[in-house]
Amino acid sequence: MKKYVYLFREGNSAMRDLLGGKGANLAEMTNIGLSVPQGFTVTTEACREYYANGEIFPEGLWEQVLAAVQDVEKKSGKKFGDPDNPLLVSVRSGAKISMPGMMDTILNLGLNDDTTVGLSKATGDERFAYDCYRRFIQMFGDVVLNIDSYKFESVLEEIKERQGVKYDAELNTDSLKELVKRFKNIVYEQTGNVFPVNPYEQLKEAITAVFKSWNNQRAIVYRRVNNIPDDIGTAVNVQCMVFGNMGKDSGTGVAFTRNPSTGEKALYGEYLMNAQGEDVVAGIRTPLPIKSLEEENPELYKEFAQIAASLEQHYRDMQDIEFTIEKGKLYILQTRNGKCTVSAAVRIAVELCREGLISKEEAVRRINPHQLSQLLHRRIDENATLDVIATGLPASPGAASGKIVFDADEAEKLGQAGEKVILVRTETTPDDIHGVLAAQGILTSRGGMTSHAAVVARHMGKAAVCGCEALKINYMDEKMVVDGIEYPKGSEITIDGGTGRVIKGLVPMKDPDLSAEFQTILKWADEMRTLKVLANADTPADAAKAREFGAEGIGLCRTEHMFMDPARLPIVQKMILAQTLEEREAALAELLPMQEEDFYGIFKAMQGLPVTIRLLDPPLHEFLPDAEELIEDILTLKLAADQEDRKVQEEIYAKENLLKKVRALKEMNPMLGHRGCRLGITYPEIYAMQARAIFQAAARLIQEGYDVNPKVKIPLVIHAKELEILRRQTVQIAEEVMAATGVTIPYQVGTMIEMPRAALTADEIAPHSDFFSFGTNDLTQTVFGFSRDDAEGKFLPVYTNNQILEENPFAVLDRKGVGKIMKICVELGRKTNPQLKFGICGEHGGEPSSIGFCQEIGFDYVSCSPFRVPVARLAAAQAAINNKNQLK
Amino acid sequence: MKKYVYLFREGNSAMRDLLGGKGANLAEMTNIGLSVPQGFTVTTEACREYYANGEIFPEGLWEQVLAAVQDVEKKSGKKFGDPDNPLLVSVRSGAKISMPGMMDTILNLGLNDDTTVGLSKATGDERFAYDCYRRFIQMFGDVVLNIDSYKFESVLEEIKERQGVKYDAELNTDSLKELVKRFKNIVYEQTGNVFPVNPYEQLKEAITAVFKSWNNQRAIVYRRVNNIPDDIGTAVNVQCMVFGNMGKDSGTGVAFTRNPSTGEKALYGEYLMNAQGEDVVAGIRTPLPIKSLEEENPELYKEFAQIAASLEQHYRDMQDIEFTIEKGKLYILQTRNGKCTVSAAVRIAVELCREGLISKEEAVRRINPHQLSQLLHRRIDENATLDVIATGLPASPGAASGKIVFDADEAEKLGQAGEKVILVRTETTPDDIHGVLAAQGILTSRGGMTSHAAVVARHMGKAAVCGCEALKINYMDEKMVVDGIEYPKGSEITIDGGTGRVIKGLVPMKDPDLSAEFQTILKWADEMRTLKVLANADTPADAAKAREFGAEGIGLCRTEHMFMDPARLPIVQKMILAQTLEEREAALAELLPMQEEDFYGIFKAMQGLPVTIRLLDPPLHEFLPDAEELIEDILTLKLAADQEDRKVQEEIYAKENLLKKVRALKEMNPMLGHRGCRLGITYPEIYAMQARAIFQAAARLIQEGYDVNPKVKIPLVIHAKELEILRRQTVQIAEEVMAATGVTIPYQVGTMIEMPRAALTADEIAPHSDFFSFGTNDLTQTVFGFSRDDAEGKFLPVYTNNQILEENPFAVLDRKGVGKIMKICVELGRKTNPQLKFGICGEHGGEPSSIGFCQEIGFDYVSCSPFRVPVARLAAAQAAINNKNQLK
Repeated sequence: MKKYVYLFREGNSAMRDLLGGKGANLAEMTNIGLSVPQGFTVTTEACREYYANGEIFPEGLWEQVLAAVQDVEKKSGKKFGDPDNPLLVSVRSGAKISMPGMMDTILNLGLNDDTTVGLSKATGDERFAYDCYRRFIQMFGDVVLNIDSYKFESVLEEIKERQGVKYDAELNTDSLKELVKRFKNIVYEQTGNVFPVNPYEQLKEAITAVFKSWNNQRAIVYRRVNNIPDDIGTAVNVQCMVFGNMGKDSGTGVAFTRNPSTGEKALYGEYLMNAQGEDVVAGIRTPLPIKSLEEENPELYKEFAQIAASLEQHYRDMQDIEFTIEKGKLYILQTRNGKCTVSAAVRIAVELCREGLISKEEAVRRINPHQLSQLLHRRIDENATLDVIATGLPASPGAASGKIVFDADEAEKLGQAGEKVILVRTETTPDDIHGVLAAQGILTSRGGMTSHAAVVARHMGKAAVCGCEALKINYMDEKMVVDGIEYPKGSEITIDGGTGRVIKGLVPMKDPDLSAEFQTILKWADEMRTLKVLANADTPADAAKAREFGAEGIGLCRTEHMFMDPARLPIVQKMILAQTLEEREAALAELLPMQEEDFYGIFKAMQGLPVTIRLLDPPLHEFLPDAEELIEDILTLKLAADQEDRKVQEEIYAKENLLKKVRALKEMNPMLGHRGCRLGITYPEIYAMQARAIFQAAARLIQEGYDVNPKVKIPLVIHAKELEILRRQTVQIAEEVMAATGVTIPYQVGTMIEMPRAALTADEIAPHSDFFSFGTNDLTQTVFGFSRDDAEGKFLPVYTNNQILEENPFAVLDRKGVGKIMKICVELGRKTNPQLKFGICGEHGGEPSSIGFCQEIGFDYVSCSPFRVPVARLAAAQAAINNKNQLK
Repeated sequence: MKKYVYLFREGNSAMRDLLGGKGANLAEMTNIGLSVPQGFTVTTEACREYYANGEIFPEGLWEQVLAAVQDVEKKSGKKFGDPDNPLLVSVRSGAKISMPGMMDTILNLGLNDDTTVGLSKATGDERFAYDCYRRFIQMFGDVVLNIDSYKFESVLEEIKERQGVKYDAELNTDSLKELVKRFKNIVYEQTGNVFPVNPYEQLKEAITAVFKSWNNQRAIVYRRVNNIPDDIGTAVNVQCMVFGNMGKDSGTGVAFTRNPSTGEKALYGEYLMNAQGEDVVAGIRTPLPIKSLEEENPELYKEFAQIAASLEQHYRDMQDIEFTIEKGKLYILQTRNGKCTVSAAVRIAVELCREGLISKEEAVRRINPHQLSQLLHRRIDENATLDVIATGLPASPGAASGKIVFDADEAEKLGQAGEKVILVRTETTPDDIHGVLAAQGILTSRGGMTSHAAVVARHMGKAAVCGCEALKINYMDEKMVVDGIEYPKGSEITIDGGTGRVIKGLVPMKDPDLSAEFQTILKWADEMRTLKVLANADTPADAAKAREFGAEGIGLCRTEHMFMDPARLPIVQKMILAQTLEEREAALAELLPMQEEDFYGIFKAMQGLPVTIRLLDPPLHEFLPDAEELIEDILTLKLAADQEDRKVQEEIYAKENLLKKVRALKEMNPMLGHRGCRLGITYPEIYAMQARAIFQAAARLIQEGYDVNPKVKIPLVIHAKELEILRRQTVQIAEEVMAATGVTIPYQVGTMIEMPRAALTADEIAPHSDFFSFGTNDLTQTVFGFSRDDAEGKFLPVYTNNQILEENPFAVLDRKGVGKIMKICVELGRKTNPQLKFGICGEHGGEPSSIGFCQEIGFDYVSCSPFRVPVARLAAAQAAINNKNQLK
């Protein structure tokens, strides 16, 4: 016959599949000699067979339960239904995967009129006994007999009202006795049967009820949401009740083996003597810190401290322990790995490793890389009370406070005067860069995670909340309106770029927390990882920040942000508006020395580490003003100004001319338009200027005695011939510069893989490329056909909320689609160029699960924004460990 | 020793690789007993070895040439350098693949001072002899000795001027003799050597020059442009000269074995007695029709007619023959398959088949499907003289003439009054549909091949020229301006939607030419093809046209065009602007009966053939006016109107409100935005309405005794769950309708494969789908990252002109990228659903090479616009034949 019932001492923690998480844990604790209240577990297999049998107990189950009850009776010295020394048990569900609050629990099972009297005698507390009894009847009525709870609650309310009390705990014994009587009547009225007095009958029905609770509506929904299979079933745990309220030598408490806020190694928690857990909830008495127990009962404290230490030893992690003291005897009810802040987690992992409890590898694995970035930005003090007035997209992490301004020039003026400001705009444009630079943070009412404001803020490390649609901005009156409330210029607000919250007023902040343990964990991670971690950085300042966070080079240096510099934008616009090649070349000649300085600064900051420069990528119209704004400007000029004024006439004429060019360059789908290397093909002189700037800067530095390691990256390739042509031009310019300067520059030329066609024809592209850098933002856009700007604000939330997509594919790399084409690309590319290096420089390059995928398909590096570098270092180490373990 | 030289009688037409096209053909003609002037061919292998040896003749080549010359001398009775009976030869290049005009030719080789006298005697025409001589020196000087031609030309001009004549042919004998003398002087001055008098020396140098011409700049560029390999080399053909100008019994001519315009079986061509080909070019005498030869010289005509017939028999195709008569003897210089109009090609193929010369398969293979569509539209008479004023994109084939109007309402009014009008607009919008319907054709100054005007015109079978940027339209003054010339409303123009030409005035037209032979060829094609050919049709009229052209069903019925009907647009807009689900459902309830009528009409027209209906696809903002236009409207109202007028105030307010919604729906990249089944997911009620309309229409028809075969197609799927959800909804509605009507409707539900992710996860999608219909327009857009609207007018021409892309991928399916992902999709889809049907409904579905690919990867059907159906039937047959032959 199959074994359906395991006494706690027969199981262990490895038996989660069969005993569920809770059952396995109770067994484990029992086996390591802790004083866990006696009990047994009905297996998940019993539950599965119960359903397979058409909701009938499998053969032998009940007999095994009876045998287990006998064992518990023997060991505890109590007996089921014994009026003098009644055995009471709890019956709890416990699936393999924890589903908190989703299934049912019954406490105090075994009570009836007789045993209640026995309990009263044993505890010397008649009120307590009847309180247990009335709770048991209600719980049993609800869970087992399916009687609506409100029927019990309304009687309870009636009696509380009559007695004139607010809390249940204030009810006197007589009221409780009346409740018991009336509850039993409810059961009789609703079911036609008297409340079952036989504890065995109670137990059988309770086990059945737990089985059934596996398929209640809440549990089904919970499983669907959390991707838990429907067919694994739940175990049932039957355990002796112990009571912390059996007098002054009883009590109950909860403790962590280390401080969950700081990670400090010291018992941390609280307890209450002569009390049950519920008493804490009822708020009548204040629990004491665990240290007080040492004074009050040094022996018991010592025992508990020893148990706590041994649990930590056993589970090799900080423990969160529930305990009860019944008549001076300590019982451990529950232990689990404790939850703590990420800074505590880092400290605990490092210290556990130093204590020899866990390996360095284990320490590195313990830290959740997603949370690590919390430590890198200023953040809002979690204890602060916040007046959140709106929520937008969390566009760039960190928190910032300041006075709101609506104009970039004003932001710059105030910023330079030392004021802290938040720049608030409908959207930002390249014209606003100086304002962004001067502000503490950016708040926009339109635009998504890849809007101009978001991209620029992330790369400047500024906090930003974007697409906050609740915001109505009135530039004319210099105010914003949220929910009908006006915030004029100068109002103080705080934005939280990590959550998207917009908060009224200034808010207490915490500084980044880069502890010694943090550095230690990352050092260990560096020893383990095989992926290089590079940074996306566009300026010498970014580059310095990236090195500070441990980047091993720059994997993506975007050149368009250099074009957006307000000092250069007029020249860039001149270049775009050029009617002839000569005009365009003249404008480019003006830009050349500026670009050269950019690269000079970045190369110098990186001191010989690789710097991968992407040639100009965005469509040219991004450097021009918006058509609608121009139309409105023209309208305003025509309406408001003196039409006779020659200056106004000229301004109107100039704007109308500009509008024509803007319209000519306008694209239906700029994401799929004239950008990337398509610019390099149609205007070779632009890429030529950039290549010349790169090699001239490199040559100068080499002449000055520095190391440089430039890599030129051609974006948006879809055909080998594009790369062939543009590589040839780049090589030619490199050779010209080397010939002119007499300097040998080490360099590489590679490409972005951003378009499906590049991936699908990687075998043809690879021979022309030293590296493939996956631009997974654009690759995700094209593989899904999702314009990120349009999707994130509109239909994508519907997709993730309805579980059509498990994750936002722009946040977490989509392995089945995007990942599949990446794999195809890697295979094809390696076939024709075995030397080829593979990396990623989309935003996924800083996302742990995506980094794991890069490891799996054999990438060489990831590149991410400087603030994500520590996250990536840790995630890369974890990926390497996982990969190694899978190969074992 | 290798054989480097083949006498014509030693070769045959299968030896193209070795003898080149011309050499193989001369050999073939010689072997079938035609009187071809004697000669021999130096092989391409000799040329290759010449280069491999460092530009030295391979061993044995010259000896073999000498032996061949001896053979020619013996056969012709003439001798190289014999002053009495000189052998003269032509030396011509001839690669495997014809490269007309790219390499060099030398005529009259063998002439020197002595042999020229001999030639003069033999022809009795001293002038002719010296004319040959001076031409030979110039040609040899140019080709062999690399002397700039202008040096000869300037002397020629000088003497012509002195003699006071215009044409070379007017030069007298003395002048020609002087030319010979002075040309020889030029050779001496330029080379330091006298002109070679030894014919063998001439021949050796000429052969060398032809070898060298393989690598001249022109030839290299030509090969690059035409994808001809560089390493195949050229053959050299050395052939006896024959002269048609040796008296009245000599002559020259060209003839086709059938009429190349009509296909009629009769000799067609012209000739001139006592003349050389050049005389025709010189324009001094008018050639006679070939029929005249019958009267003039019946015997010779009979001989030629027999030869022509036997050549046709031999080559099994209409021949284009060059001949020369030298002293009464007929020589065939060249024969090749003749070029002809497509209607002639159709007739010839059918008749050749009936004559037993070719099989049906061969007849079907002979027709170029690209040209077939010429026969389906009215077209401009090719003999008309045209005043082309501008050229735009050939957006919708066919030609149309009429008066220009700039307003859709006016177009409708005039059209209904029986006037022929061309609607001229900057762009069209759904508001213009009634104007498009009433016009003969559409001309727009903006927008690409997928602009609204283009799409609508193609599907209405109207001629359209789009994106004609030379056009400046002034709506205010109702005129258009092209190149500074004004065309007021009412001016007559003609547009040619097949070429994009805009022509001033009315132009003679030809009606479509659907001959009996045309029908025969298509019937034969239908017998051979395995791909079903369906049509893209949105209306009962389209459906009827599709059936007329032989479509076997509708593969794509777009429902958005139904939404754009001017009577419905206000309701559609009400649906879009709805603030609540109830408002939207109310608007949808109004649309339901209209949609039901649409489907009723189409199902009825298709009489039980499959009708595949795509649920709503475009983003909703396409049904709303343009933001810029609204801003300008508001501006105009504010500027021009009486601001106090309440009605104007209200209009401004309404437009401002509409503008807000337009802005809210505005997308950065609508192609990748909130469209396709994303609408079905976010607004399930829209797709529900459409499904209900489909099934209610089907049920009604079944009740009325008709057969129906509806297939519901869900667009833009990127994840199996989308299809699962939307299929479930569709099935549920079908069941509701069937339950309510008591009718059983046969139906299928399938999906479009348009996004790379759908193809990459086809194994997950396939189980939810009855068919996969590839939308290769969108798939091309996403695989390339090319927005078609933006690419075709801007950078794509640069890509095709520079051979980065061989073809516009929107015209011809890109096999390496798009094709590769389609293959992946087919393999994955079949794996999980072996019953799955595959088809294509993008524009590629009517393009022959793309149809070939569909056949290769095992598709079940193609679907294209009604006017492409005959093309697709033919192309599908050819694809099936190719496929069968490859499997052999």
